[in-house]
Amino acid sequence: MHLQGGLTVAQLQTRSGTAPTAGLTERFRATRALSEALVAPLSDADATIQSMEDASPAKWHLAHTTWFWETFLLREHGADYAPFDERWAFIHNSYYETEGERIARFARGMLSRPSLDEVLAYRAHVSAAMEPLLEDLQHADLIALGIAHEQQHQELLLTDIKHALFQNPLGPAMWEDASPREGGDLSQPTDDQAAADARLRGGSEGWHRHPGGIARIGHQEEGFGFDNEGPAHRTLLEPFALARRLVTNAQWDAFIADGGYETATLWLSDGWGWVKDNAIIAPLYWREGEQFTLAGWQPRDPEAPVTHISYFEADAFASWAGERLPTEGEWEAIARGQEGAAAAHDAAAGNQLDSAGPVQPRGSEGLFGDCWQFTRSGYLPYPRFKPAAGAVGEYNGKFMSGQFVLKGASCATARGHSRASYRNFFYPHQRWQFTGLRLARDL
Amino acid sequence: MHLQGGLTVAQLQTRSGTAPTAGLTERFRATRALSEALVAPLSDADATIQSMEDASPAKWHLAHTTWFWETFLLREHGADYAPFDERWAFIHNSYYETEGERIARFARGMLSRPSLDEVLAYRAHVSAAMEPLLEDLQHADLIALGIAHEQQHQELLLTDIKHALFQNPLGPAMWEDASPREGGDLSQPTDDQAAADARLRGGSEGWHRHPGGIARIGHQEEGFGFDNEGPAHRTLLEPFALARRLVTNAQWDAFIADGGYETATLWLSDGWGWVKDNAIIAPLYWREGEQFTLAGWQPRDPEAPVTHISYFEADAFASWAGERLPTEGEWEAIARGQEGAAAAHDAAAGNQLDSAGPVQPRGSEGLFGDCWQFTRSGYLPYPRFKPAAGAVGEYNGKFMSGQFVLKGASCATARGHSRASYRNFFYPHQRWQFTGLRLARDL
Amino acid sequence: MHLQGGLTVAQLQTRSGTAPTAGLTERFRATRALSEALVAPLSDADATIQSMEDASPAKWHLAHTTWFWETFLLREHGADYAPFDERWAFIHNSYYETEGERIARFARGMLSRPSLDEVLAYRAHVSAAMEPLLEDLQHADLIALGIAHEQQHQELLLTDIKHALFQNPLGPAMWEDASPREGGDLSQPTDDQAAADARLRGGSEGWHRHPGGIARIGHQEEGFGFDNEGPAHRTLLEPFALARRLVTNAQWDAFIADGGYETATLWLSDGWGWVKDNAIIAPLYWREGEQFTLAGWQPRDPEAPVTHISYFEADAFASWAGERLPTEGEWEAIARGQEGAAAAHDAAAGNQLDSAGPVQPRGSEGLFGDCWQFTRSGYLPYPRFKPAAGAVGEYNGKFMSGQFVLKGASCATARGHSRASYRNFFYPHQRWQFTGLRLARDL
Amino acid sequence: MHLQGGLTVAQLQTRSGTAPTAGLTERFRATRALSEALVAPLSDADATIQSMEDASPAKWHLAHTTWFWETFLLREHGADYAPFDERWAFIHNSYYETEGERIARFARGMLSRPSLDEVLAYRAHVSAAMEPLLEDLQHADLIALGIAHEQQHQELLLTDIKHALFQNPLGPAMWEDASPREGGDLSQPTDDQAAADARLRGGSEGWHRHPGGIARIGHQEEGFGFDNEGPAHRTLLEPFALARRLVTNAQWDAFIADGGYETATLWLSDGWGWVKDNAIIAPLYWREGEQFTLAGWQPRDPEAPVTHISYFEADAFASWAGERLPTEGEWEAIARGQEGAAAAHDAAAGNQLDSAGPVQPRGSEGLFGDCWQFTRSGYLPYPRFKPAAGAVGEYNGKFMSGQFVLKGASCATARGHSRASYRNFFYPHQRWQFTGLRLARDL
Repeated sequence: MHLQGGLTVAQLQTRSGTAPTAGLTERFRATRALSEALVAPLSDADATIQSMEDASPAKWHLAHTTWFWETFLLREHGADYAPFDERWAFIHNSYYETEGERIARFARGMLSRPSLDEVLAYRAHVSAAMEPLLEDLQHADLIALGIAHEQQHQELLLTDIKHALFQNPLGPAMWEDASPREGGDLSQPTDDQAAADARLRGGSEGWHRHPGGIARIGHQEEGFGFDNEGPAHRTLLEPFALARRLVTNAQWDAFIADGGYETATLWLSDGWGWVKDNAIIAPLYWREGEQFTLAGWQPRDPEAPVTHISYFEADAFASWAGERLPTEGEWEAIARGQEGAAAAHDAAAGNQLDSAGPVQPRGSEGLFGDCWQFTRSGYLPYPRFKPAAGAVGEYNGKFMSGQFVLKGASCATARGHSRASYRNFFYPHQRWQFTGLRLARDL
Repeated sequence: MHLQGGLTVAQLQTRSGTAPTAGLTERFRATRALSEALVAPLSDADATIQSMEDASPAKWHLAHTTWFWETFLLREHGADYAPFDERWAFIHNSYYETEGERIARFARGMLSRPSLDEVLAYRAHVSAAMEPLLEDLQHADLIALGIAHEQQHQELLLTDIKHALFQNPLGPAMWEDASPREGGDLSQPTDDQAAADARLRGGSEGWHRHPGGIARIGHQEEGFGFDNEGPAHRTLLEPFALARRLVTNAQWDAFIADGGYETATLWLSDGWGWVKDNAIIAPLYWREGEQFTLAGWQPRDPEAPVTHISYFEADAFASWAGERLPTEGEWEAIARGQEGAAAAHDAAAGNQLDSAGPVQPRGSEGLFGDCWQFTRSGYLPYPRFKPAAGAVGEYNGKFMSGQFVLKGASCATARGHSRASYRNFFYPHQRWQFTGLRLARDL
Repeated sequence: MHLQGGLTVAQLQTRSGTAPTAGLTERFRATRALSEALVAPLSDADATIQSMEDASPAKWHLAHTTWFWETFLLREHGADYAPFDERWAFIHNSYYETEGERIARFARGMLSRPSLDEVLAYRAHVSAAMEPLLEDLQHADLIALGIAHEQQHQELLLTDIKHALFQNPLGPAMWEDASPREGGDLSQPTDDQAAADARLRGGSEGWHRHPGGIARIGHQEEGFGFDNEGPAHRTLLEPFALARRLVTNAQWDAFIADGGYETATLWLSDGWGWVKDNAIIAPLYWREGEQFTLAGWQPRDPEAPVTHISYFEADAFASWAGERLPTEGEWEAIARGQEGAAAAHDAAAGNQLDSAGPVQPRGSEGLFGDCWQFTRSGYLPYPRFKPAAGAVGEYNGKFMSGQFVLKGASCATARGHSRASYRNFFYPHQRWQFTGLRLARDL
Repeated sequence: MHLQGGLTVAQLQTRSGTAPTAGLTERFRATRALSEALVAPLSDADATIQSMEDASPAKWHLAHTTWFWETFLLREHGADYAPFDERWAFIHNSYYETEGERIARFARGMLSRPSLDEVLAYRAHVSAAMEPLLEDLQHADLIALGIAHEQQHQELLLTDIKHALFQNPLGPAMWEDASPREGGDLSQPTDDQAAADARLRGGSEGWHRHPGGIARIGHQEEGFGFDNEGPAHRTLLEPFALARRLVTNAQWDAFIADGGYETATLWLSDGWGWVKDNAIIAPLYWREGEQFTLAGWQPRDPEAPVTHISYFEADAFASWAGERLPTEGEWEAIARGQEGAAAAHDAAAGNQLDSAGPVQPRGSEGLFGDCWQFTRSGYLPYPRFKPAAGAVGEYNGKFMSGQFVLKGASCATARGHSRASYRNFFYPHQRWQFTGLRLARDL
């Protein structure tokens, strides 16, 4: 996912022309409804504030996704469509058209007007106008794209508002914690310290093993995908293993207790500079025994996956543990079940966003859900990746420098909006997303 | 007025023990009511946003002034007073007690909660609790101080929300422009270009003349005053003249047309650096023929006083005009009517804040109102100024470096909250207040 | 090569234990002599100044490489060796030992003392003390490493002093231009515009073609290598072609004339930000028709390879040309002659540093020499790359985030200090090295 | 003295047309010779480096002062004068002519060429060419000005090279300490703690008392002066006292021991921010028991005046001591001996620069010498100060914002280059000059 909180045109270019209209209407309605359910607990003021340039106000996410439908479907294809407010394009565009003027990114947090109610009215206006187009086969691809786009913004909305509420010394909760941990069924199984240590440091049962060889990765025409996921291509893997579980808060506590944040030799050079310059001593949102969540400050579950860490931290932890981060190819090969265990990595089975609520990593089977997982792969073009001709491909590859690929999906990723070929990406210092860590090792 | 948007203890130390209780109850109620009237047009979101570190959210001004009453009157003297919410002191303190923890200044803009309604409830709670204390003679000084404090924040509230709304590309209006210029009765008399030029460049009728000599300036025990206004003392003046009128928008247009912003020799060295670094080409809030006001974008009245200029700009204009800025002593000497014309400088007669509305400089007789007027005097201690002992004097003189004194009062200064000895102060680059310019010359 | 102007311990770990002593004595002497020849045209003042944090003073390079021999060979193995000056370790260490204190990087430019003469005396002292160790087989690896280390610093010395002299408005020359271009024998063959265009845009004769398949890359135990060059491993290539020639100044002029620096769509997002923030309009060291060289300002040879470009510029040019940058695997596969043409890519045949003089890219056959060539590969660990245990491996992989790999060698790279597996690396905005561009395309 | 290390035209405008030619030749020769004697201990490299933007290289001071004679005297009045090198004007101009291009200030430290020897040859060339003009009455004013200009740069040369050498971890000495403290004759008399405390906190014998009244200050046509020293004018003083001695290192140690740098209430608001942001814990150049001097690291004399402090520190110390800083009017009134004691304040009697050597404050009688003394007066125009017409007055008052006035002279101020009306000025955070502190109090 990109730094800017808007979608690149590159991402908007779908990889497939085969998206069926079947279910599109239901998916459109469900997606629109979920976006609105997410902001139900927010006041107009909550939905207005912007805590940093990387984040956008909740209200802006609501309006920008709506502007997408208006601009790319309704203005072109809606019969007699009347825009809700001609002046709003300027403030709800992200960076879609280089020529089009748009609001300075930081100024999004100054948009106390239009109000949340006005934005919701805008959404209703656009959603209603979309209805006649939903069953039209010729728009199926674009509608599938718009749904994926809105789903990406749902995740950003949640991580951005979490960051904003965190700035408030009163520590406000967006939701009551309506989904408490029940026994161990949602969390990772509790085990004793020796077992935990074995799991981290080695124990063979905790690893997916892969014999190496040529794997086929990238988007394989199996449905919707962004253009940076392709072309599908072969990649050569050495024998390796990938951890079955994400690194936990308890393991991170051990890293801290062992002086992880004070040991220069564990860190990348840029990472150590970041630690020193920002006085980093723990993951984002941590304080003594607690972490800040969408349900406010909550006790930290030692067995839940650690989250809100940067690439620098993930890499330092792996060095400390004597392991390493996987490559994106390795991760995808396991996810695709090339060892014959596809069912174990059901992209639909993880802890992801089903309905509005205080999502939080809890630990689960499979590779998807809970946290985005850092790979050691730079976010770079796949072989034979080509920018598309024309405006649609205007920005292809635009973000392909300085960032790392993350795989999987997080607890804030919309259910269904995940697949083995998905390539999320962030700069190595960023950590306001639900990012986590799954170790790998050579065999 | 200080950079920080809170009052210094220094300022809170009154110069006089003679504040009568007479009228205090009415003044307290009127002041509280005016603060609330000012925010009536604002949504919760409007009242939450913060556009820069120099400014505070409207909601914060409302709460901080209430925290003052709660902390200094009710906690100490209120019988059985129960604080509204113990957790709020942290977020509504400005920088009153060095030891007390308080929210980082910039994070004020992240306080989407408490809501505006909750803050208004807090205000009602505190105002009601204050009632029994208002007639108590022993609290008269502190209550006079609290009123002055809240009045200062009314002005900041208006200038801060103006700056915040200006960031919105939609240019929202806080109020409809309910007070249009009627003929010439509010504006400065229109005259032809020759007369205007004469007024600017010299014409004798446009100047208050002063023969020089020893003047007595500073707060002279005539009622309430902040400690930086005293002690009263003698100062030696050379013969000079002070312009009867503030510099107008039309005159500023002439300065621009003559290349004022491109002529290095007109500027202070630091000012020229500021112009270049920030690409300054006009006063703040100007665009082609218009200016941004509390009533949104409005045509610019050529005859109205120019406002939202920095010291650097004021000084460059004076150089261009072949005149200079007055000293604070000169200004006060004229204001005190030592040439026998006290009535002409009635501090109560200017264009100031009487009621909630889109205040804007219009031009008026007298020295007070419309705009704060830059002097060439550094904001430094008066002779024999002494920090008070104890906590009250903790910060005396704390801001006395790098800033300039402004005199008068602006259209956003509460009626009555102005006097000849008042010393407002800002850094030479700041211009989000209603600042303007009155020329002086040697005789 | 690393940002910091010193070697990482990672780099200092050799990949091979087979370095023969044969010729080591001669190579040691020649390397030491070349370093000193390089500074012969410099005054003490020239050798002292530091133009930016990425660069180091010439004097510091001379002393730091000497400190290396003193610290790793003489202090441990030199019989009765007496350090030249105990206080100098602090100022001549780069960042070798995390615990050891050392001078702040930027303060290197404040070391007017010791003088250049004193540093040369230090060099003589250490070189003489080294003589008895040179034939000792047990030190062969470390001596080979020290030679490689000093060779890297020779290149940095040249690029750093070039950057420093460039800051001087008088444009001083370090050397007279003793090696003028003679006819076309050193430059790339001149051809007419159509041919040039064909070469750039396509013409089949200008490309090395590769059928794809599994290539073996990385350091293959064929002599000295840094640890980041290994392990040798297989990589899967798709059919591709690599340009026989580097992009030239004339081609770059065409890019500029076509609005290359003003066309956002050609650039990576971070690259476009860099262009705008730094007002970039041409390669570093360009001015009208000329370029700054170690021989001062010289006419620009249109047929010579363009140099002093950033990754951002290289990538934008490739996009403009309708081609792309190669991967490091592709480049190395061609260099290794896997199409049966090894002789064409003789690492010893290019335009490299043989003797002290105003080195400058001129164009030559083969893949090595003239300019370091950007690849689109992030500088990341090779499969099964493992940090070594103990102090030597303290920093393995330390720089593996945010940088790109460059291949080949430049005109400032010591003759012999180049090989197919060499991985140079820089951040995408850096361009004070002799960096250039060789295009690639998919087949 | 101004931030920029060059003279303003304002300063160059002399206040007096009465400068006699008598002695001008001798003074010219002595001044030129002293400048050259000051750099005698410096290598070319020493004379080249620049440690910060506020400072200039020694070589630049030598060349810039020579450029002054060349530009203002020789080019206009020298018969057949041939410039030494036409290209040098660009690099040796400070900011004299707004239109004239000149080297970026920071790049002065990149001027390894011309060499120190070439600059000295330039000086000889110009000094010789000046000889025929020295006795010409019509140039007397300009020559007096040039001498004053070169004297100012002698002081800057010393403070700038001190700052540069201080950056070197080896702590090089410019001179051996040839002038050790002898007994108590140069230092302030040693006394026991009680007496010292009495002196600081109050003892009447340690103060110059002034009854107040109207004093005449500013340049009074008594010889050479810069234009910012005038016009002479009356100022009104309240009764006050000025300390006979400068604050000493021992007294500053007591301030530190009492937590001076950790007590927010002692500091101006901007000063406290400066302390925190820069981790200030002592005067510049202090380390345990020692201070860095032009003779390298030396033991700190407890009885010598403290130096290298900022205005912020001076003000905090005065607050801690229960005293205050004087105004510039107060200081000048005492200096002028208006209590009938002119001889006690002989501007020629202090510890000032007589000959090349490791000048350092030692303590002396009188108001002049040892350290420049902060006043609480902003650097602002005197009454009726008027920018001169034409190019000469181009920059009048250009630096009159944000700075404070210092009075007296320091141990690095050329003997004779001091007078009661001299107004030196610096920003409140600057402290690389020989700045110190003389307390004042109200009577």
